[in-house]
Amino acid sequence: MAMNANGIVTLTTDFGLSDPYVGQVKGAILKRNITARIVDITHAIPPQDILAAALTIRTSFHYFPPGTVHMVVVDPGVGSQRAILAAEGLEHLFIAPDNGTLSALVAGKTITSLYRIENSDLYPLEVSSTFHGRDIMAPVAAALAKGLPLHDVGPAIALDSCILLNMPHPKIGAKSIEGQVLSVDHFGNIRTNITAACISRFQPDCFAGIELRGQLIPSITTTYVQCPVGSFTGVIDSSGYLEIAINKGSAAEQTGTLIGDQVKVLMNKRQ
Amino acid sequence: MAMNANGIVTLTTDFGLSDPYVGQVKGAILKRNITARIVDITHAIPPQDILAAALTIRTSFHYFPPGTVHMVVVDPGVGSQRAILAAEGLEHLFIAPDNGTLSALVAGKTITSLYRIENSDLYPLEVSSTFHGRDIMAPVAAALAKGLPLHDVGPAIALDSCILLNMPHPKIGAKSIEGQVLSVDHFGNIRTNITAACISRFQPDCFAGIELRGQLIPSITTTYVQCPVGSFTGVIDSSGYLEIAINKGSAAEQTGTLIGDQVKVLMNKRQ
Amino acid sequence: MAMNANGIVTLTTDFGLSDPYVGQVKGAILKRNITARIVDITHAIPPQDILAAALTIRTSFHYFPPGTVHMVVVDPGVGSQRAILAAEGLEHLFIAPDNGTLSALVAGKTITSLYRIENSDLYPLEVSSTFHGRDIMAPVAAALAKGLPLHDVGPAIALDSCILLNMPHPKIGAKSIEGQVLSVDHFGNIRTNITAACISRFQPDCFAGIELRGQLIPSITTTYVQCPVGSFTGVIDSSGYLEIAINKGSAAEQTGTLIGDQVKVLMNKRQ
Repeated sequence: MAMNANGIVTLTTDFGLSDPYVGQVKGAILKRNITARIVDITHAIPPQDILAAALTIRTSFHYFPPGTVHMVVVDPGVGSQRAILAAEGLEHLFIAPDNGTLSALVAGKTITSLYRIENSDLYPLEVSSTFHGRDIMAPVAAALAKGLPLHDVGPAIALDSCILLNMPHPKIGAKSIEGQVLSVDHFGNIRTNITAACISRFQPDCFAGIELRGQLIPSITTTYVQCPVGSFTGVIDSSGYLEIAINKGSAAEQTGTLIGDQVKVLMNKRQ
Repeated sequence: MAMNANGIVTLTTDFGLSDPYVGQVKGAILKRNITARIVDITHAIPPQDILAAALTIRTSFHYFPPGTVHMVVVDPGVGSQRAILAAEGLEHLFIAPDNGTLSALVAGKTITSLYRIENSDLYPLEVSSTFHGRDIMAPVAAALAKGLPLHDVGPAIALDSCILLNMPHPKIGAKSIEGQVLSVDHFGNIRTNITAACISRFQPDCFAGIELRGQLIPSITTTYVQCPVGSFTGVIDSSGYLEIAINKGSAAEQTGTLIGDQVKVLMNKRQ
Repeated sequence: MAMNANGIVTLTTDFGLSDPYVGQVKGAILKRNITARIVDITHAIPPQDILAAALTIRTSFHYFPPGTVHMVVVDPGVGSQRAILAAEGLEHLFIAPDNGTLSALVAGKTITSLYRIENSDLYPLEVSSTFHGRDIMAPVAAALAKGLPLHDVGPAIALDSCILLNMPHPKIGAKSIEGQVLSVDHFGNIRTNITAACISRFQPDCFAGIELRGQLIPSITTTYVQCPVGSFTGVIDSSGYLEIAINKGSAAEQTGTLIGDQVKVLMNKRQ
């Protein structure tokens, strides 16, 4: 079934906001599609952090209406022979370099068809070798947002032929779940790769605390305010992941947590 | 008189721009109202600083056209029993948690009707307990921007039944006005809570300087450039408040000023 | 030939994103032109850095569709007698204070007609003396984006009557090109004022390296990935300027480069 584009293009990049790069990308989209509506997801992916981009688009795309085109540009290999991909799944479209950015969506079976962008009629003759986000991806996103059928961008390729990242998965043991810190947000909340689904494999009364950087966090609550101001709590965040937070404080600052740190949910089977 | 929504939704939050939170809120608005036009006022309210949010929306809403919906989300109590409010005044609509965010607009008599958002038909069945900005306020803002009558969001409540902050007011004495620093901007200009109206209660020739952190600022000028490069001046800023600035410099850096610092306008009655 | 406005207004300012200033400007545009579509180029021009604004708009405007209005506000002289300009060139419109912001576009002959904004019917009666970006330029940009003929803003003036900055030009010698660092981007890439056109005045086999801060950079490649990870390379950037970069690293951090530093491309005529 062909997707009906809704004219919206989202952007997720590591460009930052200090340079005119994001503005130039928006200009390039509007040049090809004057009615496109462009929405920033974020431009603060850490430079060249493909895993962060992959996780961000996976947890964010579905908040947008069906028919949205999502352009994700973290592209350290720009100018090399790496392909640029266009993909479809759950009535959303995605454009990204073939470097693992779409991994989480392919692994999670969100993406159901995949194409290599090769139709050079879609972008200007003169393409820089350092900014394909602006010179190739932007005009292709613009065309798709205007209703170009996806198969017009280039040849279809097998889902397993794109580059897949090693996504860090939690290990579920007899008495614990071992995961790691995926990111730290603006509020200092610490997001882990442990999902509510992992935790629900154990009986609720088995829960014996969360270990992080030598700290034992005693509870999982449903909101930040259910524990006293200043104390740690685990919370299932708004995307279904276990998060370590402090009511009105920065958990990351207080613990010195870094991305990649081990997190352990302890379970006491004998109780 | 019913307000005619113009389709514009503004956002004022403490979310920052490093996470996909703002993008997710915009997606949630567009999902409910595909033609909504979303404008950022700022996402750099200091985390959980309700007073800063209250002052920002008060000084900014009226630059937008009548019929605009303003969504203000600084929400440390998310997931608790605090209500979410929708309000109307001067042909603008406002949505915010009931935590004092709308204080300045209620105290200043901008807001003339107030409702509690309780109509759960307006938002999805599944609501996270940590992100009501995205899961409740965004779809309600979307519906109001599309023309939903305000009274459809839930019951009307009395204006004095919402939570009001203690807004810091200047004290007008016989020979001085004592106020405080409300904020410091990107240029290092220091905004106080002393208004042009306060100052005009004295004869112009009474003015004897401004005291801040041991510094005596000798003049109030109408522009930054009326004093020599590098010297301090008081200026009535573009919203009617007394601001301390340095022509081509950062007054905040040079004085070490912090939010909450005392500012004193000296007046010499005997002259 | 009259230009057809396309309804898009871009913004390039030194306002930052921590204050509500950018939001207020957008409100002021929408108040006058409810259908205007506003795109940020950047708000991170260093405070009062007119040269940076001039270079940013010169390298960015042409990515937008013809008929776009570009508003550039870096305005340390706000409230003084400095004029506000509106200009046209290559089917784009520009609005900026008369302080050199439009220099690079005038010098490069992009701008072909120039006006002084004096028609006070276009903006509100009450104009602050510290924020003409919001109170004068925004409503004029709004009117132009709606199709107001450019000559309605005020009197035409001669191109050479506006303030021109001393743009730093590279010196082309017998055996070298001496330029300087114009800016450092978010990735730590160092942009110089040496263009591909300068370099192509020499035979390709003359190239003998680039000197910057005592470092000798041995190559100019067409992409970042053509040199080993961690090594320096010169790259012609996506706007045609010589850039010093490190494959997957920050060249600026590693060299301690500052804006204004000398950069020398060495040429060996005798080879």
